[in-house]
Amino acid sequence: MRIALGIEYDGRDFSGWQRQAGTRTVQACLEQALSKVAAVPVSLVCAGRTDAGVHAVGQIAHFDTPSLRSERSWVLGANANLPEAISVQWAIEVDESFHARFSAISRRYRYVILSRWVRPGLLRGKVTWVHAELDIDAMREAAAHLVGRHDFSSYRALACQAKSPVRTVHRIELTREDDFIYLDIHANAFLHHMVRNIAGVLIGIGKREHGPDWSREILEYRDRTRGGVTAPADGLYFVHVEYPPEHSLPQTQRAPRF
Amino acid sequence: MRIALGIEYDGRDFSGWQRQAGTRTVQACLEQALSKVAAVPVSLVCAGRTDAGVHAVGQIAHFDTPSLRSERSWVLGANANLPEAISVQWAIEVDESFHARFSAISRRYRYVILSRWVRPGLLRGKVTWVHAELDIDAMREAAAHLVGRHDFSSYRALACQAKSPVRTVHRIELTREDDFIYLDIHANAFLHHMVRNIAGVLIGIGKREHGPDWSREILEYRDRTRGGVTAPADGLYFVHVEYPPEHSLPQTQRAPRF
Repeated sequence: MRIALGIEYDGRDFSGWQRQAGTRTVQACLEQALSKVAAVPVSLVCAGRTDAGVHAVGQIAHFDTPSLRSERSWVLGANANLPEAISVQWAIEVDESFHARFSAISRRYRYVILSRWVRPGLLRGKVTWVHAELDIDAMREAAAHLVGRHDFSSYRALACQAKSPVRTVHRIELTREDDFIYLDIHANAFLHHMVRNIAGVLIGIGKREHGPDWSREILEYRDRTRGGVTAPADGLYFVHVEYPPEHSLPQTQRAPRF
Repeated sequence: MRIALGIEYDGRDFSGWQRQAGTRTVQACLEQALSKVAAVPVSLVCAGRTDAGVHAVGQIAHFDTPSLRSERSWVLGANANLPEAISVQWAIEVDESFHARFSAISRRYRYVILSRWVRPGLLRGKVTWVHAELDIDAMREAAAHLVGRHDFSSYRALACQAKSPVRTVHRIELTREDDFIYLDIHANAFLHHMVRNIAGVLIGIGKREHGPDWSREILEYRDRTRGGVTAPADGLYFVHVEYPPEHSLPQTQRAPRF
């Protein structure tokens, strides 16, 4: 049978999602824990592979197994065998038409910026610290240029392996609360480093190093080498994956805020 | 001259505030960093000594020094020399009538409980996880018994060295937001483990292991050995110290919420 999981993790403790020999990754820890519960090897497919340092509150994965366990046993058994920085939030049996990656209709990321003159202590690794004051209106204007269906070549990592650089950004929202700026991006799918490259450009514009049209100029180059800096992983959270309602997945928890 | 500091830290990385040979403490790290900035040894007095694992967003400390530095230099110099889990938020010159501990009029702590059936991943060490559902109304009723001037002997650590067990609790508030319960306690001062012992009793009542009057019964015993369990340090934050307005200290940041 096929089981879907909702997963939360602190990315700082791992070299990203994907299993790699010789490093500690989220996938490897989860597969190891679930294999113990299943008593046979488990292999996971996730909705979106996150990089080293990137957090998740709404990562979704699925696996196939011959082992019969209650949904509760999958969750509690996995969590008992996982490092404390990873926690399985829920497990649910799904039919074989569900695929964590290919069934996904859209994804949401949140990027959290702490904008003040002193660095964080309590929230180190959980937010991206920007020393300068940011012009959020300029950032909003710049963000609007990226909404829609575009070739995001300038915003993807050189190493990105996606076949097409075209993605549809449904919405970008910027919200300020005290010293925090929340950048929320909702798209059908994301290219490698796409959120961090967008965040890097918007931060540059927020610092007034460039005008609000810079985000569009970069987009039009369709050339990563002419893009902006990649913002740090610290403030990045994979928060939600949307699937067709017939799969009836449990609600994911809300995006983090501080 | 005398300098006052506003300090934030993640208590999980330290064996508490107080300097102790052979362990990593907040005080020792700060004194070492500030001594580098001052180029002479610095010795700190804080508003409230926190235990191992306890966090702070509004710890206040002061020191005397012959070294002339700008307020900005104290902050940036200290932060450049501190572990990343500690950050000095501000520094301000105060007159010698200011004393971080003795001038304090009142203090506030926040205790954060995550109440859900799965353990935290992202927020491990930042919240206290309670597996059970909590009856917040019963907790509020129990909390009301503790407000006022009382002998808190039953709520202080056996090792507590305060001369008097009498403290005045100005207010206790319990707020629920999603799966989080915030317990805010405002008092003139606190005994050793007082917040964690109150939290332990209120959690027991919230779990319906005891009725709401249990908090008062314990209070009336005036005997720690008949008290409740000490709740974990994970969810505890030292958030604010009130001083007479003439010292004009900068505002502390708001209490953490998630």
